[in-house]
Amino acid sequence: MATAGKVIKCKAAVAWEAGKPLSIEEVEVAPPQAMEVRVKILYTALCHTDVYFWEAKGQTPVFPRILGHEAGGIVESVGEGVTELVPGDHVLPVFTGECKDCAHCKSEESNLCDLLRINVDRGVMIGDGQSRFTISGKPIFHFVGTSTFSEYTVIHVGCLAKINPSAPLDKVCVLSCGISTGLGATLNVAKPKKGSTVAIFGLGAVGLAAMEGAKMAGASRIIGVDLNPAKYEQAKKFGCTDFVNPMDHTKPLQEGWGVAVLVGVPHKEAVFKTHPMNFLNERTLKGTFFGNYKPRTDLPEVVEMYMRKELDVEKFITHSVPFSQINTAFDLMLKGEGLRCVMRMDE
Amino acid sequence: MATAGKVIKCKAAVAWEAGKPLSIEEVEVAPPQAMEVRVKILYTALCHTDVYFWEAKGQTPVFPRILGHEAGGIVESVGEGVTELVPGDHVLPVFTGECKDCAHCKSEESNLCDLLRINVDRGVMIGDGQSRFTISGKPIFHFVGTSTFSEYTVIHVGCLAKINPSAPLDKVCVLSCGISTGLGATLNVAKPKKGSTVAIFGLGAVGLAAMEGAKMAGASRIIGVDLNPAKYEQAKKFGCTDFVNPMDHTKPLQEGWGVAVLVGVPHKEAVFKTHPMNFLNERTLKGTFFGNYKPRTDLPEVVEMYMRKELDVEKFITHSVPFSQINTAFDLMLKGEGLRCVMRMDE
Repeated sequence: MATAGKVIKCKAAVAWEAGKPLSIEEVEVAPPQAMEVRVKILYTALCHTDVYFWEAKGQTPVFPRILGHEAGGIVESVGEGVTELVPGDHVLPVFTGECKDCAHCKSEESNLCDLLRINVDRGVMIGDGQSRFTISGKPIFHFVGTSTFSEYTVIHVGCLAKINPSAPLDKVCVLSCGISTGLGATLNVAKPKKGSTVAIFGLGAVGLAAMEGAKMAGASRIIGVDLNPAKYEQAKKFGCTDFVNPMDHTKPLQEGWGVAVLVGVPHKEAVFKTHPMNFLNERTLKGTFFGNYKPRTDLPEVVEMYMRKELDVEKFITHSVPFSQINTAFDLMLKGEGLRCVMRMDE
Repeated sequence: MATAGKVIKCKAAVAWEAGKPLSIEEVEVAPPQAMEVRVKILYTALCHTDVYFWEAKGQTPVFPRILGHEAGGIVESVGEGVTELVPGDHVLPVFTGECKDCAHCKSEESNLCDLLRINVDRGVMIGDGQSRFTISGKPIFHFVGTSTFSEYTVIHVGCLAKINPSAPLDKVCVLSCGISTGLGATLNVAKPKKGSTVAIFGLGAVGLAAMEGAKMAGASRIIGVDLNPAKYEQAKKFGCTDFVNPMDHTKPLQEGWGVAVLVGVPHKEAVFKTHPMNFLNERTLKGTFFGNYKPRTDLPEVVEMYMRKELDVEKFITHSVPFSQINTAFDLMLKGEGLRCVMRMDE
């Protein structure tokens, strides 16, 4: 607690401009203000969404910025009004929050909190519109309220899930975004019945987590769809029974009916376009952020699923590097190698 | 039964070309072939879908054609292989069928039978690709497998619901399309929970039936949306608690989240277009034909809801004319006057 109320100087990976390698800098991290928490990040993973906003193609460029949102850490100090967390608590930061007070938070159907829902363009804290990061006094922008590519970061209390302190943070850190997103897209949103057929388009970490969800739901046929045929072998570990490469076919693959669930952050100019008859013909289209899990209410239970060995998280973690080698993690993601690369902050 | 196996000469309203008044003609109606049923129509109502295909704007023009699909009648004779119906049975024809054998018919989720689902462009019977209607030997096309603007018509057995013979056909005929479509869109597809808010866009007969469904489901706030403010008074009878005219507002009305259900037959060139973020933000889009009711399995029970006075059908029937005045029914629909006009075939 010696650091509470003081500025902390620590290392962070700063994205100075779009697409340029991150550089490890010494940053100043201000103390948490009202309803905020300063967290010591122990492990952070790289998610494709970090890469999208680093490339900033089809997204608003917000630089210089500290990216990162899939992580695990320990509370260092808390700001005024924070009663749910105390220093020493183990937490997972989440890119979308839960105020517990708005119509969305009070509804079973939605996890898109009015106050704290994902905002990819905002680079500051919602309390005072300021950044908590500076380098020689100049502000560095936040990313989706988490900015976990830093040894210390400041996060709104509504974007932190307090988890079982015996859960290994180097493993469960990947539940803070991608794995829960895919798993929940199937279990909470598509909700396939036992014995049904599920197709997963795109077999990255999120897709494979969705596949894991389909297996858990008892789907009897699980079709993996990807442009890269090499993905089939890996997908089998997640329950894939059939593989389809759209490049091998001349007709559309998506003929059929049922429920489709969109996941991910779309390009700013993206357009979904179809003939209305496709909906009238018994098709349902849904979308979800974070698998419809409410971060504070539901994420601790996803961690417990791992602790009870109902959910295998290790098979998603294919690489681990010291934080200082963060650009290696970016290279792996850009080459499509592996699923999740966990960075160790203390190295 | 004196007519069984013979050609019947009777009156039908023929649409000779797009947008021109129908003319009452004497037509020959061939006997039913395998799996077909010849039905004496007693009452037929006019639905907007008849008008769309009569205007043929944005639809394939198929002329000369006998339109009509919302009706009630009595079986005159049956073709080979028909075991479920016998002469004298009371039936409602439905524009989309139920073979009871395909994956859709066997699924709880779908009423879009592989064999008999709605086909607006086909003007012939599916058994032999021929029409059963002729005038002086020249074929007149069918419409959605029903063609109820005729004293007698031939319909596939899968497109006929056998109903309680004590149900008044001059009332329950309107359950054969529009009212069930709207009611089912709410009760079977949107499935609002008790106490929820429901908005209905378009307050014609189908919209008001959807509203009736919202009231039956226990919605606490029911918002009617229509460009014509005069619709509010009528809508109150169907449970409308609030009325919104989009012309009175400069911002989009549809901000919010939840489940949207598309109903109706779209223009051939229609395009549904939106940013994918609209789905990710907790919106679900579905569509349905005939309110997801399976015609043979479910429609008899909708008739029973009327018989038990759980569903008021009379308030949808605002006009009634002799069949000979069918063009009056078209005029009323085009002027937006009233909801349903029932035509009496025996006058």
